[in-house]
Amino acid sequence: MTIELVSSTRSFDGSQRQYKHDSDVLNCPMHFSIFLPQEAEIAPEYRYPVLYWLSGLTCTDTNFSQKAGAQRLAAELGIVLVIPDTSPRGKDVADDPSYDLGQGAGFYVNATQQPWKLHYRMYDYIVDELPALIEAHFPVSQRRAISGHSMGGHGALVIGLRNPERYTSISAFSPICNPIACPWGEKALGAYLGADTTSWEEYDASVLLGRATTHVPILVSQGDDDEFLEQQLRPEALQMAAGACNYPLRLEHHAGYDHSYYFIASFIEEHLRFHADYLLKRHKTAI
Amino acid sequence: MTIELVSSTRSFDGSQRQYKHDSDVLNCPMHFSIFLPQEAEIAPEYRYPVLYWLSGLTCTDTNFSQKAGAQRLAAELGIVLVIPDTSPRGKDVADDPSYDLGQGAGFYVNATQQPWKLHYRMYDYIVDELPALIEAHFPVSQRRAISGHSMGGHGALVIGLRNPERYTSISAFSPICNPIACPWGEKALGAYLGADTTSWEEYDASVLLGRATTHVPILVSQGDDDEFLEQQLRPEALQMAAGACNYPLRLEHHAGYDHSYYFIASFIEEHLRFHADYLLKRHKTAI
Repeated sequence: MTIELVSSTRSFDGSQRQYKHDSDVLNCPMHFSIFLPQEAEIAPEYRYPVLYWLSGLTCTDTNFSQKAGAQRLAAELGIVLVIPDTSPRGKDVADDPSYDLGQGAGFYVNATQQPWKLHYRMYDYIVDELPALIEAHFPVSQRRAISGHSMGGHGALVIGLRNPERYTSISAFSPICNPIACPWGEKALGAYLGADTTSWEEYDASVLLGRATTHVPILVSQGDDDEFLEQQLRPEALQMAAGACNYPLRLEHHAGYDHSYYFIASFIEEHLRFHADYLLKRHKTAI
Repeated sequence: MTIELVSSTRSFDGSQRQYKHDSDVLNCPMHFSIFLPQEAEIAPEYRYPVLYWLSGLTCTDTNFSQKAGAQRLAAELGIVLVIPDTSPRGKDVADDPSYDLGQGAGFYVNATQQPWKLHYRMYDYIVDELPALIEAHFPVSQRRAISGHSMGGHGALVIGLRNPERYTSISAFSPICNPIACPWGEKALGAYLGADTTSWEEYDASVLLGRATTHVPILVSQGDDDEFLEQQLRPEALQMAAGACNYPLRLEHHAGYDHSYYFIASFIEEHLRFHADYLLKRHKTAI
């Protein structure tokens, strides 16, 4: 489990870095980005809470790093940010010419179908392999939160709901809330998981939320002028599931906002403070 | 002087927009971006102060818009941001295959040489044509400030120093402070202005600052790990000129920071608050 430093840039008195490593789970080299607040560099004998951010279709680990403005808050709150890529990558990795399948569109699932199953195991990568790597190499605690945007919001909700013991809190911007019932989800889940739609339910936040026995707090932010809202995102399905089981879901609609990073940048402070409320209850643990 | 809306995105309860217009000065169509804080949209009967941001080599109007995180402060302070492109553009516009000359590298000068002089008049565009356009179409006052990065920091310093009556305050990140004595400057000024180096001095911030009779306050931020610091930027020349004439220059060195937008994002709040101190002395003027 070695990692190789690709770049390191000072940001808000901490470090914004990119690393490369060989993923056993994904069977290819991967990049991830990480932000270390100043205190994690100065006092690595303590362990700091960490937020995993999952990005959306076509993104890599750099979009959120460059555009969201999250480092300012992470620096203030003393939170490490980990930003993985959105799929396995490389010329030996199966791909599709469309933007919503294949490289850049891993949908955070473990594929069971050819030609995808050799590499496309983003669920296991995010849940197990990457945190183990991060916890081996950086001074992070086991206080983890998870967030993401669009396809990555779907990933954050699904992964958080299926692993409530691993995350203090979950949030999402403009997530794909009900992928079994939208075109992006039907295409990706059909390709990665096959025609049997019962297997899809393990990757549908609205289904999973209705079945949850442990209730990790969730914040979802959604713009009302989002061009994908009606056909692809379906937050009403998540809200209905939450209402039926009294789940602590805070779903906020924001008038005039679209699906872009300008929306994320406008509300990232609210999301990081939401997570901090849970992460920081016991955020420093001596080794 | 018509403008055409290309896109509009909600950001921090204001609007981040891109417009297109035909520039008489540059003799080609141009794009610019603008951020309007919420109050400028709700109460356009008032006029709001404006900060012009000049970007660096290879940039367009979108880099700063997406990466600097300036909208958060502009929204809080009630300041309009105007972000022009860095050169004339188009297939009919002279260009050069290198990144530091031609399209994306206008250096904010009025070119006098072939093949550049037909289009490359960025100085006049930023000083006159663009502000006239902005003031005709948006509720901005004549309280203007100017800032920029690298080549754009050079542009902000030069334009601010040569037009002290037009700007309340000047700032720059990692500016090219002494272009007559660095490789980027020698190449660009030589191409755009010709071999007579006396004409270059009108575009050299360190020369102009030493000659200034009106002292507009200047803030310059420079990272100590900037890969271009020694050979290209030469802040020591600006500092020496300021010392010689007791100019109100605040030059801040920041340990560990490089030339990237991560540096800008880390200190944009300080720059906007610096400008606000001067801009907002009389920031709302009834029409």
